[in-house]
Amino acid sequence: MSKIISTTKKAYLAGFIDGDGSIYVRLKPNSTYKYGFQISPYIILFQSIKEIEKFRKVCALINCGYMRERNDGILEYTINRRDEIIKFLKLIKPYLILKEKQADLMIKILNQKSKVKNKKDFNKLAELIDEFRKLNYSKKRKRYNLTP
Amino acid sequence: MSKIISTTKKAYLAGFIDGDGSIYVRLKPNSTYKYGFQISPYIILFQSIKEIEKFRKVCALINCGYMRERNDGILEYTINRRDEIIKFLKLIKPYLILKEKQADLMIKILNQKSKVKNKKDFNKLAELIDEFRKLNYSKKRKRYNLTP
Repeated sequence: MSKIISTTKKAYLAGFIDGDGSIYVRLKPNSTYKYGFQISPYIILFQSIKEIEKFRKVCALINCGYMRERNDGILEYTINRRDEIIKFLKLIKPYLILKEKQADLMIKILNQKSKVKNKKDFNKLAELIDEFRKLNYSKKRKRYNLTP
Repeated sequence: MSKIISTTKKAYLAGFIDGDGSIYVRLKPNSTYKYGFQISPYIILFQSIKEIEKFRKVCALINCGYMRERNDGILEYTINRRDEIIKFLKLIKPYLILKEKQADLMIKILNQKSKVKNKKDFNKLAELIDEFRKLNYSKKRKRYNLTP
């Protein structure tokens, strides 16, 4: 991610994320992990495959995630590396209006994750992750179709 | 709409509109109009009713539309006055990436609308309006649900 991204580009990305992006973290059961769960944080931007060229321009402003095309013709641009997520959120946080709390909680969780030393610490972290459910009230979000 | 809105706020709104807003114009059959159709331009921002307080903050940056709640719990903030649409689009246009063409076409249509003098002019305008269909490829847009 560029460090010299302009304030207007940070504000643009904050608006894009507020409009239709996702900031979330979840616990994935994984027996190869010490406490039986993997912590998976994500920031995702969405767009139709039909707008791929323009969407690439948006993603180029971030430049630390990866794009994939889903079977239903939706592009997802995902940032999932801890350091990149923190860096990106700190850049856009001053301009977020709708997802400011999600950004704060994500940063808190990722910082706490690196300090986990025992099962008790891990359980506390899991409780924090659970707070995301209250913020992201619905995983299956309603579609904002046009009314006419 | 405030004239002294900051560049970061303009960029934020451009990002919000690019992320999940709508810019479109349509012809509504209306026999009380001279050429049998009413030209209805819209800019719409969407959000869940659960985020009404924060969404009000976003809309306060625009401050020239009206909010309504749909039956399905979605809020729509609509700008539909010709002058306000032009003013708003000119403010955010330098920062739009995905919907720049829609903004240009909308401004062109609204300017041309005020110059219509006869049926031929009106038909030309109707052709321009038809171009929106190509830009807004799908009215029933796909829902960007999270994959997990």
